[in-house]
Amino acid sequence: MKLILLRHGESQWNLENRFTGWHDVDLTKKGIEEAEFSAKEIIKNNLQINSVYTSLLKRAIKTTKIVSNIIGFPENNINYEWRLNERHYGDLQGLNKSETAAKFGENQVKIWRRSYDIAPPLIKQNDKRHPKFNKKFNNIESTLLPRGESLKEVIERLIPFWEQYFETIKNNKGVHLIVAHSNSLRAIVKILDKLNEKEIVSLNIPTGVPLVYYFDSSFNIFKKEYLIENSELEKKQSIVKNQGKIQ
Amino acid sequence: MKLILLRHGESQWNLENRFTGWHDVDLTKKGIEEAEFSAKEIIKNNLQINSVYTSLLKRAIKTTKIVSNIIGFPENNINYEWRLNERHYGDLQGLNKSETAAKFGENQVKIWRRSYDIAPPLIKQNDKRHPKFNKKFNNIESTLLPRGESLKEVIERLIPFWEQYFETIKNNKGVHLIVAHSNSLRAIVKILDKLNEKEIVSLNIPTGVPLVYYFDSSFNIFKKEYLIENSELEKKQSIVKNQGKIQ
Repeated sequence: MKLILLRHGESQWNLENRFTGWHDVDLTKKGIEEAEFSAKEIIKNNLQINSVYTSLLKRAIKTTKIVSNIIGFPENNINYEWRLNERHYGDLQGLNKSETAAKFGENQVKIWRRSYDIAPPLIKQNDKRHPKFNKKFNNIESTLLPRGESLKEVIERLIPFWEQYFETIKNNKGVHLIVAHSNSLRAIVKILDKLNEKEIVSLNIPTGVPLVYYFDSSFNIFKKEYLIENSELEKKQSIVKNQGKIQ
Repeated sequence: MKLILLRHGESQWNLENRFTGWHDVDLTKKGIEEAEFSAKEIIKNNLQINSVYTSLLKRAIKTTKIVSNIIGFPENNINYEWRLNERHYGDLQGLNKSETAAKFGENQVKIWRRSYDIAPPLIKQNDKRHPKFNKKFNNIESTLLPRGESLKEVIERLIPFWEQYFETIKNNKGVHLIVAHSNSLRAIVKILDKLNEKEIVSLNIPTGVPLVYYFDSSFNIFKKEYLIENSELEKKQSIVKNQGKIQ
């Protein structure tokens, strides 16, 4: 059994270094190219995809569709799961690094960025950024919709999906693809690699590079690789690191 | 930083399906070829080795020397560490699968093979298989020398080496090679991959294939791969599995 995790390609707000969260930005040209690159790597490595999941956010959906079209996976078979959405950045959503520092102070921003269980300031119930005002999330029980989350809270809301999902793919074997976001993928990596809170906060997942987990028949991970040259991966990782983890 | 784990190539007793443990058997012709294959893969992947450790057992030392000679690592710089030795199989050492079943019963053999913390019957203090009768182990405090070990006990005696070793390679970065055995490598994989007792017992490490861990600057494992084609790896894994874990 194989599981491919893919972080969506670069988005407009990645580029502008803004806290994006649940805000529905589009891919940049580079983001589209990253999705195309990912699809080609999947083909090159002979990975025949059996199932595809994406979050409900445009940048992940667009990445998923680009990949699906290139590898020949039917768009109709794509599964959509809100629990794969990015961490909700609460009142930080929309701000860039310097705006955030001006509004809340450098120190406080550091704490939000580097902490595991400290949520950003929540948005108010009547804030137009509240997910309940977005038709896309109408089907989700409103008490579940976040107004700002810590990484810990992302993991907690991911788990109901993850447990069911992982049981299903264990029973079906084959190759499975999840397209999601920096923090929802961190949540999955934390579970698979059994990372502690400190480790997961320091882990950076580059955009637009398929990360493949290979499981043996006892579901041990015997191999884990990014489908990209090591030297290219190192470049990408340092870019993510220098972005100051504003995602 | 990169760490390469390599299980020695096939030994005479692997071939005869005998419990080997600390018994000092030699490599088979196939075992020599596996060592040569490993060296070539290390070169092919541009991995320039900075340090090499091996156990004190002939089959690991021979593998290490073959690899060192091919990659151009000076034999004088090889480090020898008894804590990397194979699990001591106590009174089972030397017996093959059917002899063991005849002597102790099928059920009991299954328990020894599949358990994490049950040691085989210990050899007596005056048994000629006791490590104290082997000059090679004269430098080791005699109370530390095992007369039969569970996997748990292998891990316990490995840890003093491992902790010091891992601190050292963290400070030196670069690429580091350990050549050892099924169970001493399992101990290391258990630590690195944070496996539980059940998981580590079900994990099989094939002979003669370099297993590379890639660490990022925060020492997270971002990649883990065997330097071999996936299809070849699957063949090797099923061979190990079918050997019934007699090592």
